[in-house]
This record gives sequence, C-alpha cells and structure tokens, in this order.
Amino acid sequence: MLRTLLIRYKQGELSLKEAEREIAGLRIGAVSDIACLDLGRRTRCGIPEVVLAEGKEPAHLLEIVMSCVDASGHCIITRIPPDLCGIVQKEGEKKGIIAKYHERGHVLVLSRGDHRLHGGGTVGIITAGTSDIRVAEEAKVIAEEMGCRVFTAYDVGAAGIHRLFPALRNLCEADVLVVAAGREGTLPAVVAGLVDQPVIGVPVSTGYGYMGKGMAALASMLQSCSVITVVNIDAGFTAGAFAARIANMVASS
Amino acid sequence: MLRTLLIRYKQGELSLKEAEREIAGLRIGAVSDIACLDLGRRTRCGIPEVVLAEGKEPAHLLEIVMSCVDASGHCIITRIPPDLCGIVQKEGEKKGIIAKYHERGHVLVLSRGDHRLHGGGTVGIITAGTSDIRVAEEAKVIAEEMGCRVFTAYDVGAAGIHRLFPALRNLCEADVLVVAAGREGTLPAVVAGLVDQPVIGVPVSTGYGYMGKGMAALASMLQSCSVITVVNIDAGFTAGAFAARIANMVASS
Amino acid sequence: MLRTLLIRYKQGELSLKEAEREIAGLRIGAVSDIACLDLGRRTRCGIPEVVLAEGKEPAHLLEIVMSCVDASGHCIITRIPPDLCGIVQKEGEKKGIIAKYHERGHVLVLSRGDHRLHGGGTVGIITAGTSDIRVAEEAKVIAEEMGCRVFTAYDVGAAGIHRLFPALRNLCEADVLVVAAGREGTLPAVVAGLVDQPVIGVPVSTGYGYMGKGMAALASMLQSCSVITVVNIDAGFTAGAFAARIANMVASS
Amino acid sequence: MLRTLLIRYKQGELSLKEAEREIAGLRIGAVSDIACLDLGRRTRCGIPEVVLAEGKEPAHLLEIVMSCVDASGHCIITRIPPDLCGIVQKEGEKKGIIAKYHERGHVLVLSRGDHRLHGGGTVGIITAGTSDIRVAEEAKVIAEEMGCRVFTAYDVGAAGIHRLFPALRNLCEADVLVVAAGREGTLPAVVAGLVDQPVIGVPVSTGYGYMGKGMAALASMLQSCSVITVVNIDAGFTAGAFAARIANMVASS
Amino acid sequence: MLRTLLIRYKQGELSLKEAEREIAGLRIGAVSDIACLDLGRRTRCGIPEVVLAEGKEPAHLLEIVMSCVDASGHCIITRIPPDLCGIVQKEGEKKGIIAKYHERGHVLVLSRGDHRLHGGGTVGIITAGTSDIRVAEEAKVIAEEMGCRVFTAYDVGAAGIHRLFPALRNLCEADVLVVAAGREGTLPAVVAGLVDQPVIGVPVSTGYGYMGKGMAALASMLQSCSVITVVNIDAGFTAGAFAARIANMVASS
Amino acid sequence: MLRTLLIRYKQGELSLKEAEREIAGLRIGAVSDIACLDLGRRTRCGIPEVVLAEGKEPAHLLEIVMSCVDASGHCIITRIPPDLCGIVQKEGEKKGIIAKYHERGHVLVLSRGDHRLHGGGTVGIITAGTSDIRVAEEAKVIAEEMGCRVFTAYDVGAAGIHRLFPALRNLCEADVLVVAAGREGTLPAVVAGLVDQPVIGVPVSTGYGYMGKGMAALASMLQSCSVITVVNIDAGFTAGAFAARIANMVASS
Amino acid sequence: MLRTLLIRYKQGELSLKEAEREIAGLRIGAVSDIACLDLGRRTRCGIPEVVLAEGKEPAHLLEIVMSCVDASGHCIITRIPPDLCGIVQKEGEKKGIIAKYHERGHVLVLSRGDHRLHGGGTVGIITAGTSDIRVAEEAKVIAEEMGCRVFTAYDVGAAGIHRLFPALRNLCEADVLVVAAGREGTLPAVVAGLVDQPVIGVPVSTGYGYMGKGMAALASMLQSCSVITVVNIDAGFTAGAFAARIANMVASS
Amino acid sequence: MLRTLLIRYKQGELSLKEAEREIAGLRIGAVSDIACLDLGRRTRCGIPEVVLAEGKEPAHLLEIVMSCVDASGHCIITRIPPDLCGIVQKEGEKKGIIAKYHERGHVLVLSRGDHRLHGGGTVGIITAGTSDIRVAEEAKVIAEEMGCRVFTAYDVGAAGIHRLFPALRNLCEADVLVVAAGREGTLPAVVAGLVDQPVIGVPVSTGYGYMGKGMAALASMLQSCSVITVVNIDAGFTAGAFAARIANMVASS
Repeated sequence: MLRTLLIRYKQGELSLKEAEREIAGLRIGAVSDIACLDLGRRTRCGIPEVVLAEGKEPAHLLEIVMSCVDASGHCIITRIPPDLCGIVQKEGEKKGIIAKYHERGHVLVLSRGDHRLHGGGTVGIITAGTSDIRVAEEAKVIAEEMGCRVFTAYDVGAAGIHRLFPALRNLCEADVLVVAAGREGTLPAVVAGLVDQPVIGVPVSTGYGYMGKGMAALASMLQSCSVITVVNIDAGFTAGAFAARIANMVASS
Repeated sequence: MLRTLLIRYKQGELSLKEAEREIAGLRIGAVSDIACLDLGRRTRCGIPEVVLAEGKEPAHLLEIVMSCVDASGHCIITRIPPDLCGIVQKEGEKKGIIAKYHERGHVLVLSRGDHRLHGGGTVGIITAGTSDIRVAEEAKVIAEEMGCRVFTAYDVGAAGIHRLFPALRNLCEADVLVVAAGREGTLPAVVAGLVDQPVIGVPVSTGYGYMGKGMAALASMLQSCSVITVVNIDAGFTAGAFAARIANMVASS
Repeated sequence: MLRTLLIRYKQGELSLKEAEREIAGLRIGAVSDIACLDLGRRTRCGIPEVVLAEGKEPAHLLEIVMSCVDASGHCIITRIPPDLCGIVQKEGEKKGIIAKYHERGHVLVLSRGDHRLHGGGTVGIITAGTSDIRVAEEAKVIAEEMGCRVFTAYDVGAAGIHRLFPALRNLCEADVLVVAAGREGTLPAVVAGLVDQPVIGVPVSTGYGYMGKGMAALASMLQSCSVITVVNIDAGFTAGAFAARIANMVASS
Repeated sequence: MLRTLLIRYKQGELSLKEAEREIAGLRIGAVSDIACLDLGRRTRCGIPEVVLAEGKEPAHLLEIVMSCVDASGHCIITRIPPDLCGIVQKEGEKKGIIAKYHERGHVLVLSRGDHRLHGGGTVGIITAGTSDIRVAEEAKVIAEEMGCRVFTAYDVGAAGIHRLFPALRNLCEADVLVVAAGREGTLPAVVAGLVDQPVIGVPVSTGYGYMGKGMAALASMLQSCSVITVVNIDAGFTAGAFAARIANMVASS
Repeated sequence: MLRTLLIRYKQGELSLKEAEREIAGLRIGAVSDIACLDLGRRTRCGIPEVVLAEGKEPAHLLEIVMSCVDASGHCIITRIPPDLCGIVQKEGEKKGIIAKYHERGHVLVLSRGDHRLHGGGTVGIITAGTSDIRVAEEAKVIAEEMGCRVFTAYDVGAAGIHRLFPALRNLCEADVLVVAAGREGTLPAVVAGLVDQPVIGVPVSTGYGYMGKGMAALASMLQSCSVITVVNIDAGFTAGAFAARIANMVASS
Repeated sequence: MLRTLLIRYKQGELSLKEAEREIAGLRIGAVSDIACLDLGRRTRCGIPEVVLAEGKEPAHLLEIVMSCVDASGHCIITRIPPDLCGIVQKEGEKKGIIAKYHERGHVLVLSRGDHRLHGGGTVGIITAGTSDIRVAEEAKVIAEEMGCRVFTAYDVGAAGIHRLFPALRNLCEADVLVVAAGREGTLPAVVAGLVDQPVIGVPVSTGYGYMGKGMAALASMLQSCSVITVVNIDAGFTAGAFAARIANMVASS
Repeated sequence: MLRTLLIRYKQGELSLKEAEREIAGLRIGAVSDIACLDLGRRTRCGIPEVVLAEGKEPAHLLEIVMSCVDASGHCIITRIPPDLCGIVQKEGEKKGIIAKYHERGHVLVLSRGDHRLHGGGTVGIITAGTSDIRVAEEAKVIAEEMGCRVFTAYDVGAAGIHRLFPALRNLCEADVLVVAAGREGTLPAVVAGLVDQPVIGVPVSTGYGYMGKGMAALASMLQSCSVITVVNIDAGFTAGAFAARIANMVASS
Repeated sequence: MLRTLLIRYKQGELSLKEAEREIAGLRIGAVSDIACLDLGRRTRCGIPEVVLAEGKEPAHLLEIVMSCVDASGHCIITRIPPDLCGIVQKEGEKKGIIAKYHERGHVLVLSRGDHRLHGGGTVGIITAGTSDIRVAEEAKVIAEEMGCRVFTAYDVGAAGIHRLFPALRNLCEADVLVVAAGREGTLPAVVAGLVDQPVIGVPVSTGYGYMGKGMAALASMLQSCSVITVVNIDAGFTAGAFAARIANMVASS
C-alpha cells in the first residue's frame, strides 16, 4: 500500500502534501499493523492461540475457534466440558480439521495437518496430589504444543516426601519445572529448595474450609522465601506456556 | 451458709417451705461457687493467670495484675512494652513482689516467692526464622512457668532445611513440639512429617504483601495435610500453655 | 542392600573407593529411606493412612486406596459420597478386603483382617448441634482406628447450656476433648473453661450470612482467651488424629 | 407564609390558579419543613445531637459543635482526643457553655444550663474486659444524657464466668442490657442466655491476629444462636442510644 | 429432691454433715437446674423454641422438633424446604400435632392446641423490595407466635421513596420496627431518620457482584449514622424475636 | 385536592385556621407527591422503569411488571431466565402487551404500542471478550430504550489489541463509551487513554481463581490512573442508563 | 520527517525500496507519535496533567512536576503534604512558576501565566459530612482547572436530610453532580433519586469498625438501585475530571 | 567418616552388624549433608544469600549477616532502613568487610573482595511509575549481584504509553523482563503482549482505597490473559533473582 502510494507520488499523481497526508493517514493503520504482528506471535515465540471454553456460549466458542483455525492452522481450547467437546469435534470434522481431545487436561487441540512447533526445550511437571493432575495436564498439552518434551511426576506430594526424591532425579533433564499443588501448596517452594532449575508454582483449587480452593496455596507460594514465580489458581495454561517459552529459549540459545 | 440454714431448719426456726426456698435461693450462688472453682484452675491443670498488656491502659493493667498477685501469688503479663514494664516493676517492688522481665518474649512474671509449678513435662520450641523468636519466647516463659523443661531451636527455617535435622535430634526428648513460623508458615507441617510428637503450629505476623503478617502462615497451617493443630497468629501464650498441659499430662501419667 | 555392599567390599570385590562411592550413592536413597520411615508411621505413632475422597476422580481414588491397602493392610477414606462408596466396596470385595462404612461420618474403612491399633487412650467428642455430627463422627472413626475408646456427647450446644453439664460429667474419663461447633463456635472455649483436659476446637461449616459456613466459628476459636488449639473448618480427621495421638501418649506413658 | 398566601387569595390579590401555584411552590419547602422536624427529634425520642470528633479538622469540629449548642442548647462529642478537648472547652468557656469531659469514654458534653432529659429508663452496661471500658463508657454517657439511670459491671468477661453471676444480679433492675466484648466476643450471647432483658452486643476492637480488632467479635455476635442485636465495632454511642430509647419507652409506657 | 433430703435430715435419717454433703452434691445439679430455667424461658420472656431446619438431616430434624413439642407443647421450624415440610406434617398428624405452614416465610409451626402467647405488643415490619419478603415473613411469624400484632409494609424500597410515607403512617401504632433490605440496604437508616420507634435492620441476601448477597447491606447498616441495631444477613427470626420482646415489654409495662 | 380546599375556604366553608390546618395536613401528602414525581422520571430524564427478575418469585415478578406496564405503558425486565420469560410473555399477550425478548442480553421489554424515547444520543459499547456480551447487550437494550443509537464492538479485548483500533474508529461518533471487561479488566482504562469520550467501565463476572468472577476487574478499574467511572460487576443496566443519560444530554443541549 | 523523506525520495536520493524501508521504520515511531497525541489530550478533552504526590520521594516528585510544567505550561499535584508543598513552591519560584496551594483539597497547581481552560460546564459537588470536604475540594480544583464553574454544598448529609433540599435547589444549574460520602455512603443514591443530572459517587475513607474507611460506602454505592457510577475511595480527582469532561461536553455541544 | 568406618570394618574392628548399624546411623547425617548442598547453591545456580532486614531486631540482623559473610564471603540485605544501614556498615568496617549501599533500592551488599558472579545474562527492568523504583532497584541489585547486565526503563507507565515504545526498543537485548507496577498493575500484561521475552510481573504496594497497596495490581496480573508469572507484592528480590537465573541459563546454554 505504501509502495503504491510512493510510486503514485513519484509519478506526480499525488502532490507532496497529498502524499504526506495519505501516509499520515496510514499511521492509524500502522498501529494496527504493528499490533497485528501479534498474529505473528506463534512464529516468534511459539505461544499458540489458546481459547478458554469456560463461560462462553457454544455458538460463540465454535465461531471463535473455527476462525482461529482458519487464520493460523490450529487452535487450543482449554477447560472444555466433554459435551461441548463433541460439538466442536463434529463441526471440525466437516471442515477437515483434526481434533485431538486430551481428556485428563480437559484440552481440545484443533489443527490442519502437523502444526507442532519444534521448540526443543524440556519441561518437568510435578503435582503434589492426584487432584492436581487436570491442571498439570493442561500445562503439559500447552508445552508439548509449543514443541517441548515434557516429563511428569504426579502425586509426589509434600506430605509423603519419599516419592519426591526419585521423581526429582528423573526430572533433572528438564530446563524448567512447573509444580502444581493445592491445599497448603508448599511443594513448589520445597522443590525450588532442592533443584537448580527455575520453578513455576501453580496453586490448584483443592482444599476445603478456610482459604480453601487454592487460596492458601496461592498465599503460601507468594509468601515463600524460595525463589519461585506464581500463576493464578488452576492456570495450567499460563504456567505451561511460560515454562515452555523459557525451555525453548535455553534450548535454542 | 448452708450449714447455718440446716441447723436453723432442724431447730424449727425455718419451716420446710422456708428452708426449701432459702436453699433454692442459694442456687444462684451455687453457680458462682462452681464457676469460682475456676480460681482453683492453677492447682488443677497448672495454667497460670496470664494478663495481656496490649490495649490496656496502665492504670487498669496495674490494678489487674496486682489483684491477681494478691489472689494467686503470681501473675504473668504478656506483650508488655518496656516502659510499662518499668512502671509495673516499680509498683511491685513497693509491695515486695518479685518481677522478672523476659526481654526476648516481652513477658513480665510477677510473684511472691517461688511459684513455679513442677509439671515435669518437656516442651520443644522451634522457629523458622529470627523474627519468630519473640513469639517463641512467650511460649517458652509460659511453659517454664507451668513447670516444664523447654528445649529451643531457633532459625531452623524451612528454606534452609539443613539446620532442621540436627535441631530435631536435639528435641527428641520433648513430649510435644511448638513450631512458630511466619511468611508461608510451612515449618510446622514439615516437622510434623518428620517426628512422632504432637506438633502445635503458631503463625507469626511476619511477611509483607499479599496475606502478609502471618495470614498466609495461618492459612497454610490450617490447610496442611499433616496432623497439626493451630493457634492464633502470634499466640505464643496459648501454644505454650497447651503444649505444657499435654507435656505435664504425659509426664505425670 | 548395604549389607551386600559391605560383604562384597570385605571380600575384596569392591575397593575402598568403590565401596565409598557406592555407599555415597546410597545417600540419595537414604533420604528416601528415611522419608519412607513415614510408611512406618502407623507403627510409631499410630496415625493411619487417610485418603480424602473429595475432589478425586473415582479411578484415581480406587487406585490410591487399593495400593494403600496393599502396602499397609488398611486404609481410611474420608468425605466419601455414598455412590463412590459402593464402587470402592465392590472392588474391595473382589480382593477380599473388608470395607466398613461409617455412614454418619461419611468414612469408609478398608482393611484385611483386624487392623485396629491398641492405643489405650480415651477421647471425648462433643458437638454443639446436630449439624456438627458428621464432622464429629469423622473424628470418632479416626480416633477409634487409632485404638482409642471414644465417648461422645452430641447437641449439647452453648445456647442450651443445660445439656452440657451432665455431658461433661460423662466425659471426665477422657484424656482429651474434641469440641465441634459451627455458627459462632463458642462451645470449645466454654468447655475449656470448665474442664482440665486439653480441648481441640473444630469449626464446622454451618451458619449462614456474614462469616457463615464455619468462618465465624474459626475466628472466634482463634481469638478465644481460653487455652485451646484449632484445626481447619470441618477437619474432623485432623482433630481426631491429634486427640488420639495425645490420648495414647498419656495412656502409654 | 401559608397564612399570608391564603389571606391574599381570599382578598382577591391572588387568583385561584396563582394561589394553587404558590402553594404548590411551597411543596419543596414543605419537604424541608418535614425533614426539619428532625430537629425536633430530641423532644420526640430523646436522642441528642452527637458529633464524632474523629476525622474532623479542629476548625470544622469547633464550628459544628458550637452551632449545634446554639441550636439545641447542648451537644455531645464522641471520640475526642484530650488536646482537641482543651480547645473546645476553652472556646466554650468564652461563650458561657458548660463543657464536661467524660475521660474514660472520651466524650465531651457541651451544654447551656441543665439539659438532661428525664427518660426514666434503666440501662445495664457490661464489659468482658478492661479494654472494653472506653466503648462502654461512651454508651453510658449517651444513656445518661438521655435521662437513664445506668448500672455498670466491667471486666466480668466470659473467660472468668465467676464475676458474671453477681454482676447480673446487680443489673436485674435494668430494662435493657448493653454488652461490650472484644476478641471472640461471646459475652453478649452468654448474657442473653441467662437474662430476660433485651441484649445489645457491641464488638470492641481488641484482639490481634486473624480477625482481630473486633472482627471476630462482630462475626460471632452476628452468628449467635441467641436473640441479640448488634452495632458496629466500637459503636458505643449507637448501643447506648438504642438501649436508652427502649428503656425510656418501657419506663414511660 | 431437696424436700426429701430436708425431711430425712429433720427425721434424723441424715446427719448434719451428710445433709450438707448431699446438698452440696446437688450443686452440680443446681447448675443444670438453673440452666434448665432456660426451658422456662417461654414463660418468662416469650421467646419460643425455634429450630433451624437448614443443614439438618431429616431424621435429626424430626427427632428434635418432636421432642421439643413433647416438652413445651409447640415448636417453630425456620428455613424448612417444602418437601421436608410434608414429612414433618405427616409425622405430626400421627401424634395429634397441629402443623401450620407459613409458606411465604418458609416457617412451620407445630403445636398441641392453642399455644400463642398474649404479649400485647405491636411490631411493624417493612421491606425494601419483594425479594426481602421471605425474611420479613419469618420475622412476622415469630412475632405473632410471641403474641404480637404485626403490621407489614412490603416493597416500599428506598429507590421509590413515595410508597414509604403512606406505609410509615400505617405503621405508627407499632412499638418497634423491623426493616429488611438487601443490595445497598439503606432503608433501615432512612426509616430510623423519620420515625420515633426503635428500628432493627435485617440485611437480606440479595444483590449480585461486589459485596452482593446482603454483604453491602450489612456493611451499610453497621456504618450508618442513624441509631439502629442489626442482625445477621437473612436473620428474620432474630429480628422478629428481638422486636417482639421489646414490644411486649412496652405493652406490659 | 388543594383546589377544592381553596375554593371551600374562599366560599367561607373553612375558616383561615381550618384552611391552614388542612393544607398543613397536606404536607405529609406533599412529600409523597413530590416523591411521586419520581413516577414522572421517565419524562424528565428518560430512565425507564427496570425490574430485576433475579431473586424474585414468579408470582411477585408478574405482579410487579404488570402494574408497572399499567402505570407507565412499558417495563424492562433484566436477568430474566428463558422459562420465566415465557410465563411473562403469555400473561402479557392476554392483556395486549407487546413483549420483546432480547435473548443475548437476557432482557425482556414489555410495552403497549411505541414507547421508545427519542433521546438522540449515541452510545458506543465495547467488550473485551465474548463472555462479556450478555452484560454489554443488557446495557445496549437500556440505551436503545432510552432513545439512543448504539454502536457495538465486541471481543476487541486487550490481549489482542489489533481488533481494538479499527473498532475505536467505528465508535468515534459515540458521545460516550461503555466498556465491559472481565478477568483483569484493563480494557476500559486502555480505551480511556486513547479516546476523548467519557468511558464507563463495567466489570464482568468472568475469570477464575484469585479475585475471579469480576473482582479483579472491579479492583483494577477502580485503581486505574485513567479517568473512568465504574459500576457494579455485571451491572449492564446501570452503565447503559448512565451512558444514555449523558449522551442524550449532549445531544439535546 | 516524513516530508524530508518524501522529498529526498522524489529527488532520487532514496530508491523506492529505501523509501519504503525508511517509512516502515517510522512505523514504530508512528505508534509513539499517536501515543504522544496523548500529550495533546489537554487540548482535546481538557483533562490536565495530574501528579499524585503520595508515595513519591521529594526528589522524584520535583523532577516530574517541573518537567511537566516545562512541557505543558502547568501541572496539578494532588495529595501533597504541606511540607512538600513548601519545597515545590520554593523550587517553582526560582523558575518563575506560579504555585497556588488549595489547602482544603491538599492540591497544588503549578503554572506559567494563565492556563485555565474555558470548558464552560457547570459541576455541582456535594458532601455528606465535613470529613468528606478534602476529597470534594480535590474534585473542585480539578473541575475548575478544566474550566468549569463549580457549585458546592457541603455537610448536607443523609442523616439530616433537611439541609439537602435547599442545597439541591442551589445546584440545579449544574450539568452533573459529584457526591462524596463516607461511612454508609448512601447520599449519592439519595441524590440520584431526586435530581435529573448524572450523579458520580465518591466513597470517602471515613467510618471505623467493620468495612470502615470508605469500604462500606463503596459497597453501598456499587450495590445501589439508583443509576450512579462510582470512582475509587477518596478519588476526588477522577470524579472531578470525569464530571468536568461531561459538563464541558454538554456546554459545548 | 564413612571411609574410617569401612576401614575399621575391613580390619575386623567392627562386625558386619556393627558396620551396618553405624552406617545406618549415618543416614540421618546423610540427609543433612544433602540438605547442606543448599550451601553450595550459590555456586550451582548463582542465587546469593539474601537477608530481609525488615522485622528483625538489630542485634539479630547483625549476627545473621556477619555469619553469612563469614560463611560465603558476601551477603545481600534487603529493605534495610538508613539508620540500621549505618550500624551494619560500621560493624562491617571493623572486620574489613566492604559494604555498598544501594540507596534507591534500600539494599546493602556486604562482601570481602570481588564477589560478583559472571552469569552473562541480560535482564530488563521496567516500572510503570516513579513509586515503583525502589522495588525495581531491589531487583536490579540482585540481578547484578548474580552477574547480569541490567537495563532499566522507569516511569514508562501504562497511562502514558508513549514512553513505553522507545523504552522497549532499548530493552530488546534483554533475555527476560521484570515489570513492576502498582495501582491497577496492567503494565506487565501490556508489555508481554508486545515483546517476545518472558515477562515477570511485580505488583508494587502503591494505590489507595479499594484493593490499594498493590492488591489490585496482584489481582490483575494473576487474572491476566497474557502469559506472565507473578511474585508477591514488592518482592523485587524474588523477581530479580528469578529473572537473572533464566537470563544466565540462556546466556550459558
């Protein structure tokens, strides 16, 4: 567009003032252009488009994810209930879209052909209990979609430390660790005290009573003396994507 | 009083109905009598009279603690600021009361002669950091006043677990453990996972930001999977007294 | 393993350096070994393995409790809904496991043969209202599994103090008292003011409106002037196990 | 004003329409007139003008209270710090205003001559501890200004129930009771369970840690099974005025 | 019991010491006797036995209310869902108990014959909106059971003040007013500014978003400059009983 | 009424005093009259009667909305569930009332004939995500009912700023903007930094975990450095009505 | 810059590709250019640069405000304590900057020559009490700086409605009203129910106890049934600027 | 120690059983040995010993930091007030310790000789306002101590986006970004939407009113749709150390 403008100006079709104004008029567009680089985000840093199914009406969700696949070739849907999953899969099939459901993480991945990135990083994911597995699996799917190898060690909770040590030895290859824990949420800090890798804590919405549903876990992770960073309660996607981004940076540097 | 009543009734000074009514009228008094057994509490279970200095006007405080010493021979004042301490000590001296100030725990013990009980129990007190020492010392003074031997291990915090293990070995004689911790407050649960003794957690009002000032510690202790019980934030007195009570029960049984 | 190592070293199959290294190599294992002593916990202090059913998917729960029974001969499942109960019981039957459902406490106890410990302690459990009974029964089952005799006095709430006094007389044999109360939660403090035994307060998630669902009860127990310790809202298991631990210590000392 | 209007209308100076419009124009005024009946409130129900000193700049406060005395002959100032008190007293003296400072309640009463109402009611005020006395005294001054006799029983707290019973006997003449308590705030409910009079609970901002500063007391009073009503934390004025209003109603009916 | 004792003592069957001890032995019983006066509460101050159905298992509820009717001749059940209502009514019929369901207030009144007290007081009940009616009706049933005449004015909310004024005129006969309001909960303060009677505010659990479900209403009532007292969110029973108690006092004095 | 009074007074049927008193007696009525001007509100500032369906029993709702249509010719019902909608529509049909259901906003508009006001203003409504559309549509229906043209731009959320710029260009005609956003709720502040129009932020109850359900959005909007005002979480009606009021003022001035 | 580029390109100094790239290179700049239009904000919508003094170190503050005056000719500093005020004024004098301190609002306005905008709008500002005046004055200064006439009516609080009506009549010229109120914060809703103008509520940090310091006021304003919008607690600046913006729009349209 | 044991066993000084037991006896020690690897942490991952001055008594602080310097050659003290700083510096001088005070970050670094690590990473630190600088500088000192180059861009806040773009261009060399922001805290999410690097958000305790003091910032960062992780409010140390750890990993891989 700018090129045409410049050519027309050179050829005298536009006066200096006209060219100036037209280009100035492009400024607003420029902003959106730059903003739209955001669409190039996947190429740049490997974070795919992710859509949160929860709280969206089926029709809205369908429209969003389909246009997302059309635009970028794939789409990841988190927190999708089984019944909605069926609807999306059926709709995808009609359009030749491959829909893979990761049941344990409640994640549906839509794509046309092979879309996985080759990040090269390695991410370790640990959970304190079995109730934390859904959130951990959400992180896992994202990290894998971003081209990471993922090692997991589930239910190695702080209460029974004995399962933790062998688990950590298996995860020593990982560039970065995601540790999901509910209730009092101490596992991330404990792990961060034992390993060299950066640790990202994910509070999980378990626990009843006072500060239950992950609130105590969030509080204890934020107050921790250990060097860890934290994401929102149950935010497996954020933790997985952040971890994968770091892992891929380390792998590619 | 009852005796007089009965004699007068027997001698015919009171009719059956009158005696019945008079004795019934004593019922209200009976309740307070029974309630007053509470004054015998120190003899029964060895929990001394403790007065919280904080929030009391100096004149009120002075009056309360003096009448407490008069009644029971001694009195423990917690959370007493140094300047108030001087006033109380001076007043005590005039009346021949011995006033011992435990500076680290901000506790002042008033007594006439030897007043310590001989509970026989042994209490271990652990703190995660140095900021938790004031609260731990408050617990220590109470437990000692209740006749317990007290072993302490301060600043063996969860972040640097390495100081914890030798500390625990030193505390293995204790019948019960009090563990004080601020910030994320995980130490009581960690300790409870490693020892056989009952563990009482004391959240300490350290930590800044979200759920700071002991709130995260309280939350994480209550949510803990370990079998621990908890007292209010900074409630060194309660933890110390509860621990000493158990320790003395075990020692005397 | 160490024995084999030592024998092989004595026999010259390993050099000093090799033996040293191998044993050093065991250090990591040693940690887990020590941690695993945790598995010996039942023998040491009589707290059995307890699994919280709530928030776990049926398949996960089944796997966990079965491997728990395989390892230790028994397993206690708390907060188990009736339907899940049926599934576990059926699965247990196939494997010759005895499954006893304590309906009022929503607790299922799995075992092979007689597994009860003989702690010898005596625990008293009191509730303020009938709504607190489920939580109290959870505490009761745990304490009984830990070998305690348990006396209960339900619905002797603070509002109608008159039922409390005879109840307390019946509980005077108990070594320690668990007092469960919802709404304003004052019963534990009242009881602690009347008896010599240590009192553990359990806030129960009753009450509506401001600070309902046990929050006011928790707050008032923590703020209490009486010497009591507290567990999380509805945490019958923790209170029962802590009480039984103390009671057994007193009984066995 | 209406009279003039009506006369002018009768005399033909105003047409029907004009009179109608003028009177309608008075409607707005009518509203304020009615609203201003509020100024007659003291006569009607005996609640005097009360000004909260806290948070007001000295100049503002002075202006408000002086115009209040000018308008109604007296004024009550609550939560006034000693230094401000001096300023107001000095200013009052210049204008021949009698200023009586109730030190324990931090209340200053300004008046010209005798201003006390003769309500005839009797109010009982009880506090759990000595820290609650300032708030209780605030209630007392208000109730006395409203013409009530006030009986007090301070420091008869729930922890040591023994002082409560004799206190209650002394207060049996009271028409209504105000019970102030901090920390866990159980005293109002306990009292309400023992007496026939209506009980108004005042949470007091004592207590530290979780839900300290009167929050636990407020929560426990609102959740109470007893029939009590509650005012804001430290709101001695409201409790005293409400109690005096009821007491005076009973006395005068 | 005392009578027998006294007679046996007079007849020489008991020595002075024996009589003294026996009567002293009655002290504990005396406490419960006094406490049991609580059972005489209905006669004294006219507050009937009220049972909260919510959170109770049907079997427990049935047992409690039946024994309550057996003991006192009647029983009021609040927050009872329609289905439970049927069960209780059916059970009552078998025993010749009259069960009257107040549908709008979700209250069931059980009685044998006429049980209403003749308090003589008059209570006015006002609601801001139609959503507050259930709570208001709960208050109404209690007040009527306590022998009060009750006038109501519903949906005269603060938003449309115009319905309030005629309503207040109708309620001018009332001795005391109960004002129920949800959302911002300003109506009680507005009413208290316009009338002479004591006003009791009842926050109602309506309103969504920030501080919804009655929380903002509770906060605004407690912070109010007007002289009102407050009960818990939705606590129609407490407000009704407190109001009726006052009204009856005024009527009978 | 006043007219009759005046005529009767002129004709001598009433003395001056009588007239005076009668008119004074009208004062109370005057207040309600003035208050009732509130019914004229629609004419004055174009805010129609709006009824919140949520929390109302069907019978109450029906009664309220029908009397509202009878009084003012139309009525807007917000947050109405589909099934209730059918009931109201059926009832309306019987009475010749047109009922238009705005499904996306869950709003039902009842009217007799054309009732739309001709405000002339223009309102722009923006949402951050698709989950915010219900709330935005509620605002839209209100603004349209108040006679505004409404432009919308949905799902132009802060995460993908690129859709925002073209959207803002389309909305440059609007006099005022309503911006609805959940989760972190930053869109209103971002928009306010880019446009000249007043911006009203509507937090939407999306987002999970810590401060989810619109709480974080509310907090971030209130803390914003940008000049925006805020309404309650999900309060589409309030935002729409406030925006339309301003837009119409600008249009008509 | 673009002009030079275009000329050089036309003259053949730059090839098409070079020109294209250079202009593309301007895109980033373009964004900042557009963003910088923000600097032109004062011209566009009349919201001046405002700096919050609170929380800034004196040196930082001085640097910011001076560069702000240099850039735009004036600067408004809010929440500035008196001592800091002196420092800034002295520094300003050296540079020939006029510094006007609005003491009641704690606002300092720096300028070179006449800088007031001529917005033409009229804003009414009302406070419930005298404690709200500082916040109201902050709003007033901002609105005046934005070229509005401001009418104020202070201390016309909800408790004594009688001062409100005459005040409202005086404010009827205002295009928009700002209503500041602390404690229960009901005044904005009351005002909005009585007037036609848009009302913006400002919660003020007064009130003690539960939800004190403006929290109850914020809650009650957000929950209000009236059509009002709200700003943060004490946010006089935001309310004043928002109100002035609307008033000026109305005036200039 | 093991070596001696093995030699003695080989030489027959210890029987197999004795050797076995002795080595088993070493297990406890083994755990602490492993735990003590923690002391080697600085060598492994470059996180230095950091001591929080706040809440520690001067004597305690001095003891801790001196023994820390003795053990590891250096020590970083955060949140140290100027007066304490002088005390520590003076004490350090006596012992030949170099003490460098970073005034803007309130950080004191103690060391013997050159102690900086050579991590090689590059960290970018951005603040929204000037009030966030203290926290940012704390992060900066830590990152520099961990051997990173640090680029900063302060006061490029979200309100005036125009300063952000040039700042980001300058920071494009950074491996990871730390973004500190108070009030609504949106800057980290905005930055994360514009750059490829991992972004760590630090909520800063600025902002007044509702959710002030960094609470709104924390909430909005946790709720953000962008992929960022978060640390506690004001936790500059944690953010700086985490960022430096990642940056050094990338640099060294």
